[in-house]
Amino acid sequence: MPKRIAVINGPNLNMLGQREVDVYGVQNLETINAGLKQRAHELGADIEFFQSNGEGELVTFIQQCRKRVDGIVLNAGAYTHYSIALRDAISAAEVPAVEVHISNVYKRESFRHTSVLAPVCIGVISGFGSDSYVLAMEALLRLN
Amino acid sequence: MPKRIAVINGPNLNMLGQREVDVYGVQNLETINAGLKQRAHELGADIEFFQSNGEGELVTFIQQCRKRVDGIVLNAGAYTHYSIALRDAISAAEVPAVEVHISNVYKRESFRHTSVLAPVCIGVISGFGSDSYVLAMEALLRLN
Amino acid sequence: MPKRIAVINGPNLNMLGQREVDVYGVQNLETINAGLKQRAHELGADIEFFQSNGEGELVTFIQQCRKRVDGIVLNAGAYTHYSIALRDAISAAEVPAVEVHISNVYKRESFRHTSVLAPVCIGVISGFGSDSYVLAMEALLRLN
Amino acid sequence: MPKRIAVINGPNLNMLGQREVDVYGVQNLETINAGLKQRAHELGADIEFFQSNGEGELVTFIQQCRKRVDGIVLNAGAYTHYSIALRDAISAAEVPAVEVHISNVYKRESFRHTSVLAPVCIGVISGFGSDSYVLAMEALLRLN
Amino acid sequence: MPKRIAVINGPNLNMLGQREVDVYGVQNLETINAGLKQRAHELGADIEFFQSNGEGELVTFIQQCRKRVDGIVLNAGAYTHYSIALRDAISAAEVPAVEVHISNVYKRESFRHTSVLAPVCIGVISGFGSDSYVLAMEALLRLN
Amino acid sequence: MPKRIAVINGPNLNMLGQREVDVYGVQNLETINAGLKQRAHELGADIEFFQSNGEGELVTFIQQCRKRVDGIVLNAGAYTHYSIALRDAISAAEVPAVEVHISNVYKRESFRHTSVLAPVCIGVISGFGSDSYVLAMEALLRLN
Amino acid sequence: MPKRIAVINGPNLNMLGQREVDVYGVQNLETINAGLKQRAHELGADIEFFQSNGEGELVTFIQQCRKRVDGIVLNAGAYTHYSIALRDAISAAEVPAVEVHISNVYKRESFRHTSVLAPVCIGVISGFGSDSYVLAMEALLRLN
Amino acid sequence: MPKRIAVINGPNLNMLGQREVDVYGVQNLETINAGLKQRAHELGADIEFFQSNGEGELVTFIQQCRKRVDGIVLNAGAYTHYSIALRDAISAAEVPAVEVHISNVYKRESFRHTSVLAPVCIGVISGFGSDSYVLAMEALLRLN
Amino acid sequence: MPKRIAVINGPNLNMLGQREVDVYGVQNLETINAGLKQRAHELGADIEFFQSNGEGELVTFIQQCRKRVDGIVLNAGAYTHYSIALRDAISAAEVPAVEVHISNVYKRESFRHTSVLAPVCIGVISGFGSDSYVLAMEALLRLN
Amino acid sequence: MPKRIAVINGPNLNMLGQREVDVYGVQNLETINAGLKQRAHELGADIEFFQSNGEGELVTFIQQCRKRVDGIVLNAGAYTHYSIALRDAISAAEVPAVEVHISNVYKRESFRHTSVLAPVCIGVISGFGSDSYVLAMEALLRLN
Amino acid sequence: MPKRIAVINGPNLNMLGQREVDVYGVQNLETINAGLKQRAHELGADIEFFQSNGEGELVTFIQQCRKRVDGIVLNAGAYTHYSIALRDAISAAEVPAVEVHISNVYKRESFRHTSVLAPVCIGVISGFGSDSYVLAMEALLRLN
Amino acid sequence: MPKRIAVINGPNLNMLGQREVDVYGVQNLETINAGLKQRAHELGADIEFFQSNGEGELVTFIQQCRKRVDGIVLNAGAYTHYSIALRDAISAAEVPAVEVHISNVYKRESFRHTSVLAPVCIGVISGFGSDSYVLAMEALLRLN
Repeated sequence: MPKRIAVINGPNLNMLGQREVDVYGVQNLETINAGLKQRAHELGADIEFFQSNGEGELVTFIQQCRKRVDGIVLNAGAYTHYSIALRDAISAAEVPAVEVHISNVYKRESFRHTSVLAPVCIGVISGFGSDSYVLAMEALLRLN
Repeated sequence: MPKRIAVINGPNLNMLGQREVDVYGVQNLETINAGLKQRAHELGADIEFFQSNGEGELVTFIQQCRKRVDGIVLNAGAYTHYSIALRDAISAAEVPAVEVHISNVYKRESFRHTSVLAPVCIGVISGFGSDSYVLAMEALLRLN
Repeated sequence: MPKRIAVINGPNLNMLGQREVDVYGVQNLETINAGLKQRAHELGADIEFFQSNGEGELVTFIQQCRKRVDGIVLNAGAYTHYSIALRDAISAAEVPAVEVHISNVYKRESFRHTSVLAPVCIGVISGFGSDSYVLAMEALLRLN
Repeated sequence: MPKRIAVINGPNLNMLGQREVDVYGVQNLETINAGLKQRAHELGADIEFFQSNGEGELVTFIQQCRKRVDGIVLNAGAYTHYSIALRDAISAAEVPAVEVHISNVYKRESFRHTSVLAPVCIGVISGFGSDSYVLAMEALLRLN
Repeated sequence: MPKRIAVINGPNLNMLGQREVDVYGVQNLETINAGLKQRAHELGADIEFFQSNGEGELVTFIQQCRKRVDGIVLNAGAYTHYSIALRDAISAAEVPAVEVHISNVYKRESFRHTSVLAPVCIGVISGFGSDSYVLAMEALLRLN
Repeated sequence: MPKRIAVINGPNLNMLGQREVDVYGVQNLETINAGLKQRAHELGADIEFFQSNGEGELVTFIQQCRKRVDGIVLNAGAYTHYSIALRDAISAAEVPAVEVHISNVYKRESFRHTSVLAPVCIGVISGFGSDSYVLAMEALLRLN
Repeated sequence: MPKRIAVINGPNLNMLGQREVDVYGVQNLETINAGLKQRAHELGADIEFFQSNGEGELVTFIQQCRKRVDGIVLNAGAYTHYSIALRDAISAAEVPAVEVHISNVYKRESFRHTSVLAPVCIGVISGFGSDSYVLAMEALLRLN
Repeated sequence: MPKRIAVINGPNLNMLGQREVDVYGVQNLETINAGLKQRAHELGADIEFFQSNGEGELVTFIQQCRKRVDGIVLNAGAYTHYSIALRDAISAAEVPAVEVHISNVYKRESFRHTSVLAPVCIGVISGFGSDSYVLAMEALLRLN
Repeated sequence: MPKRIAVINGPNLNMLGQREVDVYGVQNLETINAGLKQRAHELGADIEFFQSNGEGELVTFIQQCRKRVDGIVLNAGAYTHYSIALRDAISAAEVPAVEVHISNVYKRESFRHTSVLAPVCIGVISGFGSDSYVLAMEALLRLN
Repeated sequence: MPKRIAVINGPNLNMLGQREVDVYGVQNLETINAGLKQRAHELGADIEFFQSNGEGELVTFIQQCRKRVDGIVLNAGAYTHYSIALRDAISAAEVPAVEVHISNVYKRESFRHTSVLAPVCIGVISGFGSDSYVLAMEALLRLN
Repeated sequence: MPKRIAVINGPNLNMLGQREVDVYGVQNLETINAGLKQRAHELGADIEFFQSNGEGELVTFIQQCRKRVDGIVLNAGAYTHYSIALRDAISAAEVPAVEVHISNVYKRESFRHTSVLAPVCIGVISGFGSDSYVLAMEALLRLN
Repeated sequence: MPKRIAVINGPNLNMLGQREVDVYGVQNLETINAGLKQRAHELGADIEFFQSNGEGELVTFIQQCRKRVDGIVLNAGAYTHYSIALRDAISAAEVPAVEVHISNVYKRESFRHTSVLAPVCIGVISGFGSDSYVLAMEALLRLN
């Protein structure tokens, strides 16, 4: 039975390709997701997508992944740095999650060097542009 | 005229009984609320319930308690530790509130030892499982 | 062509005039907005208003100001102090924004002395009651 | 066989009712203890009382609770904030203890927000005046 | 009787227009003051100006504002960040003062994010170039 | 009616004259107290003395000063730096107290620069050898 | 030969009696100095006075005390908390100095709890109103 | 012309498979490297390996990568957290480097949450066992 | 003449063998002391024992060691981490003291990594169970 | 079969007896090692010695102790305070290690009060001159 | 045309040779300046001198160096550690400045290890007695 | 007899002239050393050179300077900021050392503002490019 991956994007990632293209690149989220869908197809996996600017909506969606998906690729954007509610949602979902970032957060403001989510994820991938999502999906699919 | 108590639960508390049962116990929120309703009935009080994963929804509900309920039992979950918006909502509502926690937060990660809500509540009850809610409701009803 | 200003209020500012009137004054938000509309009219500017208690809703509204409005007057309330999501939304919108506060936040609790938004705004106006909004709008309209 | 509860008060709590009545209320310790005795009687429990200003005396008394009492209601007063010796005594006694405070310590000086005892207690009840003791006793008696 | 405003500038503000024009703009202090004088005239107010590089001279001038002027527009420059002596002078003068900055100090070095003066001023205006002074004067004249 | 002063010494001050004479001088506590008694006699005041190494004993003695003495000269020794229990006892006693030190504590280890007692005393006198006690007593007797 | 004492007051102490009388009392500096002169006369000592709002002027005056006066009573006001230049001047002067404060600085804002001067003074007297000066002068005259 | 990747391992990584297999897995470094060689071969890339326990040797090897290799996969082990010398070597080499970790360092001691290398790398991959190396190599080969 | 060693144990060490045997071992204090007595006898030394839960009693006993014993083996338990009073007592006693711990305190909570006593002891021995006492006594007896 | 102990010394300990003899004593490392060899012989144990100034060499040597020696006496000198690489080597070696220091590090600069090694050692012995090594070896040989 | 160097000394440096000669040496400022004048003459440079104890006077003098001198040798004394006003003056003057100290400030109190001036100077020379000035002047004259 | 100077360079300084020439200039280490040799020759001094990327090798070389050279010019590169081992080596060598930096480290990342070596050197010279070495050598040769 194919594995199912959820790709979840947090606040302002719906603006990709429009804003600060020197930091985040020129691809918009639809293009990135299309590429991921293509790659998932090649790897024989199912994939679904969710984006929200709202902390509560993200919490609810992650809760609903429980027992329904096999892995979460999560770019929580700014919430990475302070949303303990998201952290608790990941713990509650009991689904392997990978924290991803498009930019290398360690080259940016110091408040972006801290993650409250990383301790409850299985790993972190940061700095590879849209490839960060691809690498995370591939890593999740290699898990047994 | 009977006193009216609002029992408000924050993010991920809708997952009680499913997740991390060693920390939070096996009771789900419906069961806890049923017990509270029963106990409120015994004590001659009215009771209502609200749960949301969203910070904004919780703020709005607390605002609406103003001049409508006599006491708030509030388990704000993760928001306890950083939501100044909830804190301001409690101040604005001008209803006596009790901060409750199911687990003893002082036995857990250090970021759970800090509450931004406690200074605007009348008290804190932490560590008694679902009894934390019961004790809080009883304490509120004893206030004159 | 007239300039367009968006006046955005965050959590609990819908309670103005009802709560803590010694801190925030007796005017409610409708009255303040009416005054701003009047003043915008005098200055030949268009104006619109938004208030939400939800961080996600505020992020979305600020994103939608992009290329649509010429300046943002933003009283983010409690989110001023921790919402990096709002900060990123302001950066993404690429609209000049002014952070305003009704009270002088430096006379209050120390956690209110920190702003995560100010570094991406063009300026800050704090402490003049409802005049803080007026001054911010006037300052935005003087920008070329 | 009836459960046995020890109610232990630390430094300066022998001054209740005389000092700072706006913070601690007008009841003196004898009155509070009498109320607790009455309530314990109603609940079919045995109860005993101890107060000392001395850290060593409190340590010794708590040690002697080991295998002799079923629960400890502990208002350690100022020692709450720095007495690691009391903390170790609670661990050594292996009796469920509840930390209580008459006032809401989170509304007071910041050094009163820290408890070195809470991590080894089963829970904390703070802010309900003399009801804090009653609630703690009731919570202990509900434990199985 | 017309209101009287004192515009006080601290260290290095006599160098405006000569140094770091990308940060502080090309206007020199004389030009800014002339504009303020014009604007005060329009608003029916009296105005006076003082600039000094010396902390003591600034303290003395502020003391002398007591019972003589109705409002102080104060750009204390670097002293903003450490001169408790200026803070005490503002308290002693008992004249409403507004802290102003030409640049948005929150975009600069972190030591410029702290103000020891703001807690004793009525408000802060930062980031609007020479308009910061104008806005502050207008805000003071609107006070009743 | 003569005023009554209590001179209270904390831990290790019974060792004065024997230990570290370069820091504390060669006078022992009996000699210092004899001098104070003589000086009190000259000033028409009654005086009493207490020394203990025990925090609890000191708390109890200070409590017993309530409504019985007119002023407390308190050298709490090491407890100055951490005994919140003593602080609470001074508050509870509601007797004017002066914190004294024989040595200038600001010339010594940094942990001796902090006093948890000073905020509840009327003043502090530090660095004058045994004259610190005399000055404190004289200051208390000048109070009306 | 009579001993010579210099009484030095720093910024804003020329405002005594006019400002914040609940903190600093109703006596102005002239009255305090007259009292000190009277008391010095009784004790057979010479006395001189200096007040300045300027850090540099205070440094220069303290330097000039070297080998000319026998003791310095120094109320450095706000400079107490940050003027390392004054600290170095006291070291350079090699005259015994006593740091004094009219109010008990430990009851006020936390930035007033730190003194950069105290480690190079012989002692500190704080909290006794104008008596702080008298006690300091008496302490200096008792030194041999 | 094929791209050339250097895989560099720091202190104690020569012990893989022998020590703490619950943290680091059962594969030894030779096996991991063989897998990487195989994968590089599939992707048409050249690969070389280096391991040293010595900070200086690692610095020298990284320097020698300059203009010779196209990408560095770097697991600096404990040096990740404090070796500014390695950081400077990466800057000096001017070769794209990826920081990798076998375990999720954010689940371990807090001193392992800090990286002095990440700000000069293009990205970080942490938590995927030996797959961390594979993912990093693949990410480097996708760079143009 | 034989050397005399005092073995002093602080709070809760009278509970050894009863509590938390995985941390502190199964030996009770009597057994440990008997072993030390035996070993002292072998080495030709006199030995005495003291245990108290009270900080003041420990201070007093250490003071009384002055000029009476040749070395102190001190396990101050929890007081190690905050009792400046004990620190001052050791200084005052002027007897060589060795700080000992049964467990390796560096493997436990971070507040146990700090010792206020170690700077006034001649050395520290931690982590060897009851052998910590033996090693400390032997070390003291080797001193000349 | 005799137990085998490795005595490992870190940077600058090859300079013992030459440098700072007031801190480290007059014995050089050869003399200390000869004494240890003699004592090991008496106790029926084998012993070997290693000294290096290089962090990498020390890491490698400790790794090589794995399954080859029964205990490590480790004076890591300055590396004690920052070498996480050494810490990881001790963990990897899985040999009981004792951290030793010749001087009492708690009497020296504050950066010497921290050990990154102690949490992975079985114990610490500090302050007994060359006896620190002897006591550590004896403690290791008493382990079963 | 000869280069022109300004040698500027801050507070208490007019006391050189009189005070604390073990720290600052026996030369007074006149002697040092004479030596610098001689050396400037040898190197074909013009030189001028300024000393003040006042922060404002130093700010003003540095401002006046703008476009008039080619290099500044600045020993700002205590102001080095906190005068942001001086820092801003150096930035405004746009003249290359070298921070100098007679003593090695890193061997002294920790508050002397921080410089707010160094980031806007071209370099720092500390610890060579009066040679610090000579080296700084030579370094400035070598700049092209 | 001529004085002998050792010029010691730490990690990555062998890369000078190749990397980051905007920070470190275009001269390579050989050119700098040749210039220093020439200058030493002019001043009648002997000179030798050492560079290593290894902390241990640098420690060993500095040890070997003891009683063999008269002064050390030390650019420890990144080790400046954390190598307590180098610090101890300088102390052990008992040769006057000058810490030098090519760039002004105070204009760079904050972790480069701290030196663990400076307190055991006689002085620091920072910011003058390759002249920093020349000035340091000259300063050492002027010492008597």
